Amino acid sequence: MKSFREELWFETSTRRAYLNITEQVRQAVRRSGVQEGLALVNAMHITASVYINDDEPGLLKDYKDYDEFLERVVPQAARYRHNDTGEDNGDAHVKRQLMGREVVVAITGGRLDFGPWEQIFYGEFDGRRRKRVLVKVIGE
Amino acid sequence: MKSFREELWFETSTRRAYLNITEQVRQAVRRSGVQEGLALVNAMHITASVYINDDEPGLLKDYKDYDEFLERVVPQAARYRHNDTGEDNGDAHVKRQLMGREVVVAITGGRLDFGPWEQIFYGEFDGRRRKRVLVKVIGE
Amino acid sequence: MKSFREELWFETSTRRAYLNITEQVRQAVRRSGVQEGLALVNAMHITASVYINDDEPGLLKDYKDYDEFLERVVPQAARYRHNDTGEDNGDAHVKRQLMGREVVVAITGGRLDFGPWEQIFYGEFDGRRRKRVLVKVIGE
Repeated sequence: MKSFREELWFETSTRRAYLNITEQVRQAVRRSGVQEGLALVNAMHITASVYINDDEPGLLKDYKDYDEFLERVVPQAARYRHNDTGEDNGDAHVKRQLMGREVVVAITGGRLDFGPWEQIFYGEFDGRRRKRVLVKVIGE
Repeated sequence: MKSFREELWFETSTRRAYLNITEQVRQAVRRSGVQEGLALVNAMHITASVYINDDEPGLLKDYKDYDEFLERVVPQAARYRHNDTGEDNGDAHVKRQLMGREVVVAITGGRLDFGPWEQIFYGEFDGRRRKRVLVKVIGE
Repeated sequence: MKSFREELWFETSTRRAYLNITEQVRQAVRRSGVQEGLALVNAMHITASVYINDDEPGLLKDYKDYDEFLERVVPQAARYRHNDTGEDNGDAHVKRQLMGREVVVAITGGRLDFGPWEQIFYGEFDGRRRKRVLVKVIGE
């Protein structure tokens, strides 16, 4: 069994951001040399997500749909007990929970085994600082 | 290490549907010959989910609870920027995100290692066309 | 390839509870002897979650943020068709879906490969009875 590990680093200029990281993950899988296996891709911080969405031309609109939904059900400006400690990111840990921490992707024939429109995204809910995503690959 | 891959295809007659696919996954795991390992089961489309629920007699009611919840927080008829392109499934990609893309299930002794009530479901949020689920098994 | 399986049992005294189970998972991973691989940690019941959150001093406040969010969007006292059968946990299966069933964690050098604040939690939404979490480890 082979295993491989790589960290991807991100620093967004806005509090919330949605980045397509498919190409970085694809390169990590290539470097792993794994032909058949699984790739785990997870945010290493509790205020960020890794999820799968499509990447059609509507994407810029799509991420606004996500953002508007998240702000509607978990507004950043609402009161959170978490913020009693002086922080202002109480919303971010709920938003990340709704969007998910991780994806597990099949590797077949050395490639991400995706449907026609699947792409991997990093969702940032408390940005403006350096944060990490872990790519862990196991297989053969 | 063994690996195995199979696609399951679905076409629902309604826009939204919730199907128990446990038996299909069970057969795929059997065909894989894996005794100890992991099975990844994921929707290959961004407007569908794979998730685990129970299958008691209340199931027909349960899925309506999910459906009513999803329609309440992400109504199909609301305005989504995604739909500016002429599509009408903007709600589906948010609904799928809340229900999740995938499950990872342990395989022990050649079987799905489940609690007493766990069953695997396919959640469709933009149906009436053929769509796929991927089953990827790795182990020994 | 090595594989390892262990069940963790919980019985909370309240209907809803949020328990840090990182140390139990860490010990299971140690017992597995796996140095490089993946650990799947999943609730074996449909009314409970396993998820990752941080464990700063604000934690007691954080879980109340989760709880207040969940009660706001899926109130326990609302009407659920599931409850027509005489049960009262219709909310729990929706809450668990929002918080997730499982986490998959990388194992590197024999340890949980975590970001600085990641901790594993058991979320109970219909407690006051014995329920299980599965830890399945595969790797080498």
